[in-house]
Amino acid sequence: MKSLLLIAHGSRRSQSNEEVKELAEKLKEQCADEYNIIHAAFLELADPLIPDGIKMCIDDGASSVTVLPYFLNSGRHVIEDIPNIVNDTKQNYPDINIKISSHLGASALMMDLLISTAHSAE
Amino acid sequence: MKSLLLIAHGSRRSQSNEEVKELAEKLKEQCADEYNIIHAAFLELADPLIPDGIKMCIDDGASSVTVLPYFLNSGRHVIEDIPNIVNDTKQNYPDINIKISSHLGASALMMDLLISTAHSAE
Repeated sequence: MKSLLLIAHGSRRSQSNEEVKELAEKLKEQCADEYNIIHAAFLELADPLIPDGIKMCIDDGASSVTVLPYFLNSGRHVIEDIPNIVNDTKQNYPDINIKISSHLGASALMMDLLISTAHSAE
Repeated sequence: MKSLLLIAHGSRRSQSNEEVKELAEKLKEQCADEYNIIHAAFLELADPLIPDGIKMCIDDGASSVTVLPYFLNSGRHVIEDIPNIVNDTKQNYPDINIKISSHLGASALMMDLLISTAHSAE
């Protein structure tokens, strides 16, 4: 079973964290045929943290985990922190295929998203 | 002439700020027929700040400015800080149509962007 783990930074403002969890729920409704399991996790400041998020996916029966950094910029969090945490966590699950996707900001579809967002002001 | 002003948070890491400016440049290439003028500006920590970004658009000849918050979450920055700064700046340009779009994270296309980003790990 394929799983997707959405990783946000995590905020002291619980509503921001809830938004990310709601996004993961919405994503689950829309692509249940492709990813059987979808969870959200946080780099810091909120639960679950990344290792716990990976564990949640595996406890749910995932044989693969795609970690998706929900970040716009390729800063230290995307380049170092998330890969380091994921690589450390991988050691505990040698039989599970755990991989990291590009961060959201790197997507080729970003232009379309920006234009459609700009139109919301019209 | 219509203009689009992309607003990011701004970072102490200059490469992150450059990424936002490059995104604005790319956007300019792709939608020059719709928005004649496109600039990037920052809420804090980097130049130009929002009032200067709005001024740049107007100095370039814009008759309207669409301010697009390049933010994923609807936190205080999106709900209060950016609208407050934009409303204050508006007073200086009574003849210009200055409006704020939804923030990026609110877009209906976000699901598509997430799925295509997840596929980059395959």
